[in-house]
Amino acid sequence: MKFTLGFFLLVLCVLGRRAVVHGDEGMWLYSNPPKKLLKEKYGFDKPEAWYEHVQKSSVRFNSGGSGSFVSEDGLVMTNHHVGAGDLQKVSDEKHNYLKDGFYAKTQADEIKCKGLELNVLQSMSDVTAKIEAAVTKDMSPLDAVKARNAVIEQIKAANSDKEKNIRADVVTLYAGGQYHLYIYKKYTDIRIVFAPEQQAAFFGGDPDNFEYPRYDLDMTFFRVYENDKPIKCQNYLKWSAAGSKEGELVFVSGHPGRTNRQNTVAELEYLRDTGYPFGLQRLNRMEVAMTSWSQRTEENARRAREDLFGVQNSRKARIGGLGGLLDPKLLGRKVDQEAQLKSFIAGSSDPMVKAAGPAFETIAKAEKKRAEILKENTFYEGGGAFSSHLFGIARTLLRAAEEKAKPAGTRLREYEDSSIKSLELGLFSDEEIYDDFEILTLTDSLTFYATTFGGNDEMVQKVLAGKSPRDRAYELISGSKLKDPAVRKKIYEGGKAAIDASTDPMIALAKLVDARSRAVRKVFETEVDEPKRQAYAAIAKARYAKDGASTYPDATFTLRLAFGTVKGYTQDGKKIPAFTDIGGLYKWSAEHKNKEPFDLPARWVERKDKLDLKTPFNFVCTADIIGGNSGSPVINQAGEVVGLIFDGNIQSLVLDFIFDEEVARAVSVDSRAMIEALNKVYDAQDVATELTTGKKPVK
Amino acid sequence: MKFTLGFFLLVLCVLGRRAVVHGDEGMWLYSNPPKKLLKEKYGFDKPEAWYEHVQKSSVRFNSGGSGSFVSEDGLVMTNHHVGAGDLQKVSDEKHNYLKDGFYAKTQADEIKCKGLELNVLQSMSDVTAKIEAAVTKDMSPLDAVKARNAVIEQIKAANSDKEKNIRADVVTLYAGGQYHLYIYKKYTDIRIVFAPEQQAAFFGGDPDNFEYPRYDLDMTFFRVYENDKPIKCQNYLKWSAAGSKEGELVFVSGHPGRTNRQNTVAELEYLRDTGYPFGLQRLNRMEVAMTSWSQRTEENARRAREDLFGVQNSRKARIGGLGGLLDPKLLGRKVDQEAQLKSFIAGSSDPMVKAAGPAFETIAKAEKKRAEILKENTFYEGGGAFSSHLFGIARTLLRAAEEKAKPAGTRLREYEDSSIKSLELGLFSDEEIYDDFEILTLTDSLTFYATTFGGNDEMVQKVLAGKSPRDRAYELISGSKLKDPAVRKKIYEGGKAAIDASTDPMIALAKLVDARSRAVRKVFETEVDEPKRQAYAAIAKARYAKDGASTYPDATFTLRLAFGTVKGYTQDGKKIPAFTDIGGLYKWSAEHKNKEPFDLPARWVERKDKLDLKTPFNFVCTADIIGGNSGSPVINQAGEVVGLIFDGNIQSLVLDFIFDEEVARAVSVDSRAMIEALNKVYDAQDVATELTTGKKPVK
Repeated sequence: MKFTLGFFLLVLCVLGRRAVVHGDEGMWLYSNPPKKLLKEKYGFDKPEAWYEHVQKSSVRFNSGGSGSFVSEDGLVMTNHHVGAGDLQKVSDEKHNYLKDGFYAKTQADEIKCKGLELNVLQSMSDVTAKIEAAVTKDMSPLDAVKARNAVIEQIKAANSDKEKNIRADVVTLYAGGQYHLYIYKKYTDIRIVFAPEQQAAFFGGDPDNFEYPRYDLDMTFFRVYENDKPIKCQNYLKWSAAGSKEGELVFVSGHPGRTNRQNTVAELEYLRDTGYPFGLQRLNRMEVAMTSWSQRTEENARRAREDLFGVQNSRKARIGGLGGLLDPKLLGRKVDQEAQLKSFIAGSSDPMVKAAGPAFETIAKAEKKRAEILKENTFYEGGGAFSSHLFGIARTLLRAAEEKAKPAGTRLREYEDSSIKSLELGLFSDEEIYDDFEILTLTDSLTFYATTFGGNDEMVQKVLAGKSPRDRAYELISGSKLKDPAVRKKIYEGGKAAIDASTDPMIALAKLVDARSRAVRKVFETEVDEPKRQAYAAIAKARYAKDGASTYPDATFTLRLAFGTVKGYTQDGKKIPAFTDIGGLYKWSAEHKNKEPFDLPARWVERKDKLDLKTPFNFVCTADIIGGNSGSPVINQAGEVVGLIFDGNIQSLVLDFIFDEEVARAVSVDSRAMIEALNKVYDAQDVATELTTGKKPVK
Repeated sequence: MKFTLGFFLLVLCVLGRRAVVHGDEGMWLYSNPPKKLLKEKYGFDKPEAWYEHVQKSSVRFNSGGSGSFVSEDGLVMTNHHVGAGDLQKVSDEKHNYLKDGFYAKTQADEIKCKGLELNVLQSMSDVTAKIEAAVTKDMSPLDAVKARNAVIEQIKAANSDKEKNIRADVVTLYAGGQYHLYIYKKYTDIRIVFAPEQQAAFFGGDPDNFEYPRYDLDMTFFRVYENDKPIKCQNYLKWSAAGSKEGELVFVSGHPGRTNRQNTVAELEYLRDTGYPFGLQRLNRMEVAMTSWSQRTEENARRAREDLFGVQNSRKARIGGLGGLLDPKLLGRKVDQEAQLKSFIAGSSDPMVKAAGPAFETIAKAEKKRAEILKENTFYEGGGAFSSHLFGIARTLLRAAEEKAKPAGTRLREYEDSSIKSLELGLFSDEEIYDDFEILTLTDSLTFYATTFGGNDEMVQKVLAGKSPRDRAYELISGSKLKDPAVRKKIYEGGKAAIDASTDPMIALAKLVDARSRAVRKVFETEVDEPKRQAYAAIAKARYAKDGASTYPDATFTLRLAFGTVKGYTQDGKKIPAFTDIGGLYKWSAEHKNKEPFDLPARWVERKDKLDLKTPFNFVCTADIIGGNSGSPVINQAGEVVGLIFDGNIQSLVLDFIFDEEVARAVSVDSRAMIEALNKVYDAQDVATELTTGKKPVK
């Protein structure tokens, strides 16, 4: 603690101004890593080559996660939950690889994934000047956007190479303060090598989700092919046999998805006092309704499982975020930072900086409007009044008929040409819709809606049509024919005439509320979203003028480097150690009488005696991560893998807005547990050998 | 349906005015049963003796339930959940009669209950004139209350006879329209004869609570003694070997606890749009917090179980009530009734009736105020901000020190002499308080509180004292010494000086918020409660002037007769049959893989082959019941037991306010299932024989 504070004061002197980052904060660009900070705080001082090697060993899963090369033969490590969709896609009636796991004993057994794309970042360059040059002062805002997009497309086209599988992206950083060109090597022939049972990967299920201590073997290995052969990697991470230890400096290289670290205090207060509490209210009631219904029968539980898990996951995320927002220490830091920025703006003579002066008030006003229309927006445009897949389908059909008739560029966003394919995919999906589950969620949401606006509200009465929420839900769900994808397709293709002719009760309901729904969407877009976008852009410019690239930009699902210390924390006065071990897994399961979701896969029960129970299993560190970092390697100063990020504790969920190193922690699988399990539980010695030697064993 | 409507029109003609009851509505006084209605609708026409016999066979459990004599040897039938407290009290370390059941093979084995009192209603008489005569027009309202109470106490004293165990109560009916003297025979030597396992009685647990179809053997038998011998009953109900059948007229004789059928539309709208939704919001978040915590470990689950079940039970009750309040058909009926009453008042020249004119507006105004102060009242005076046993203790100690110093009659209600004993009982209870569970509930409630008033609220900031809700909860709970009953006792006895000297953080918190808490309580009492009490009294008088005793008064936990038809109902388009059978129990358990709470007691598994699986198990009827009716006998026209009330379906929860016979149903154990189980599962042939012959078998 003393060191940290001392260092903090040192930084103040060195930088000549108040520090803009706190402790181990930061999702740093590889083009601008915090070398000075690392040298001063940790004595870490590696050449550029160290960074470039780690960068080129890092892999982005375009399905939404991170990974890394861990052998010269193209072996890629990521989380089981990152690979879950791919495991599911290659499963069939006879093989449930997601649930039961998979191991390719020979190279020929490796299964090719469907539609998976991996990207490896090769280089970055600043193209800000080129893009800004395309925009002239006399342009209208709309023309400016068009001009900017046009030059971005040009740059991307000039730098892509389909034949060589070179992908070029232009990344907007610092909310428009910088534009960087990212060049990726793209891989599309990815094969599955090894996955454990889902029950080992996600041991403890929802009750343990976002919690710590943990005991999850959340790993999966893929291999990258080109021309039907494993690639030869120039860059891959070596394996650490020793693993990490308490107090050690570690790095996380991965792709954090999105953060909102630039949020003003007014926005954070909106989230704390209005947005999050209201969201939680909805999630809580959905969770109670679904849980209670699930307890009635096993089949109910099966039907509700996926939606229920989604609700529980969101609920925990909100609770974690809210806990942080309600911590005066954390919010106090934001208040200080904002005061510094405001004072910088007030003292600046740069017109661009000065322009950010009124932006804080603009955002505060927008947040006030957002709070005002929260219920209207949630229940109508957000569909919160009508929690039902069938209602969603009905509204999509209604709006598609109207929007598709309009010229491109003037439609609602999701009906523009760039989005329409994925919209159609969802609309014509033959995923089963269960009447009883639909009635449950629609009854619950209609009740919430009616009590929010009051039973005497005119639109509530029209929506309920003289019935109780449950009777109305039954009438709508049982009366609608939209369960049948063929019916949907016919109406969709029939356009406006088909919609006008339709007597489907769900389409009638969508018609009833659509004017009101569109009206609040317009208010939200014009009085909340757009003013905020402009105000944040102005603030971002001012902040950039103040801090420049001395800090890191908000996350953008591009490669970032975080660092931190392997370190436990204190919760309710109890010390939570940094590490768990394999023995703890068996104890935790026994404490729950081996009941689901704390039941052990059969292999783990059988092999218990063979395992060294003292092997470290999971550990936590202070690195600054967020969703998208799943599957990121945790490496030591030598660049060796010591762990695999798979979660954050519940306290880390505030990292969306504010970094905290007191109790927020990133949770990883320990490299030693991976080897122990591969060797002794899964008889996957070849994978273990490939990891520890960096080469696929020759047979 | 045709018959019902036809009958409805007929009643309109007969009564010469609009009907005041709907279908099978009514919790009728035995002094004024709906003979005409029964004759006209069902052709039921029995002499006075029929009613007197049923009345004197009915038993009130002063612990809060109903029962009936079912043999001449004093055997009393009630629900397992009515007798649960008594089973618990006689259990010890070696015997858990509540969980495992109990059967006294011989009379000597019957176990005497601790502190259980049963009452049997002997006679009723109208003492309204006498009580009203004690009040003169020139008295102040306070003096009027005093004079009324004084004469009530006189009447009770004059009619009680301690030696003969005669208890006299004066019951306020029609909100003061009538006062009746009820004379009871009181019994205090009650012994336990038979109880099944709790798992048979409450099969399906919370998931099945308030649901139907059901499979619960929710019965327990007691025997009433005097002078150490079973009493000889003049009146007891005979047993029906045939049981009931679909469409049959049945009666329920029992003690409904409390209804609010006189509520004005303004109050119902308050409940529908504000009170119930807000209550549900609290319950939902508590349920989610407790469930999620319970899933973490078995010990957590054990610690939370009782509170969690209470929350789930309340949540279901609110959802059921809200479903009814949101049904325009039901609320529409209330609107009509109120319009009729208003028009009667407007057309009356009686000053007493006219006085009710402004009462509706008074109530509407009070409900508006109630909504305004709902959050202030819930979070401060209701303690909703501080869900913690330790906070409750701290506040009780603080207030006791202040209130006990005041003269009797001027204190807060719960500190008056009549209540202080039960308050002390709770305060000094050595029931264990778990720090971790306290931190959980306090964190959750502080979060709810902070987000409701906003993180910038001055009092919120004082309450949180610069910490996050969780850190503050930990500080308060771990820092308080009030877990120790001896510490509480010392502070309690030390009075104001001890409170002033205390540095306990929980007492400090109670001090911090108490002024604000008392202030809102005062507003509630003076601007909501008292104006409503007066307004409802005026309305009740007007209604009584209009309807007289042609209808039934609100429930008062006194003996009432309800009637109805054995009849299934339709839910989500599915027909729910009136009866389940014993075979259904096994199927329902198998569908849940025999998992808790759908696991069968061992005896039921072993004896399955011996049972006639077609035996009717539970059934539903349309009779008008509410909490307090638990344990009521269901009898046929011959006065024979065909069932035993133990629950209502979730749709019946609106019966608090409005009767509904479309989907609201009373749920009973079938008399045939009771005999089948006693004989074939429990080898309790003696009990079965006593029920079917009406006599204890001679050995």
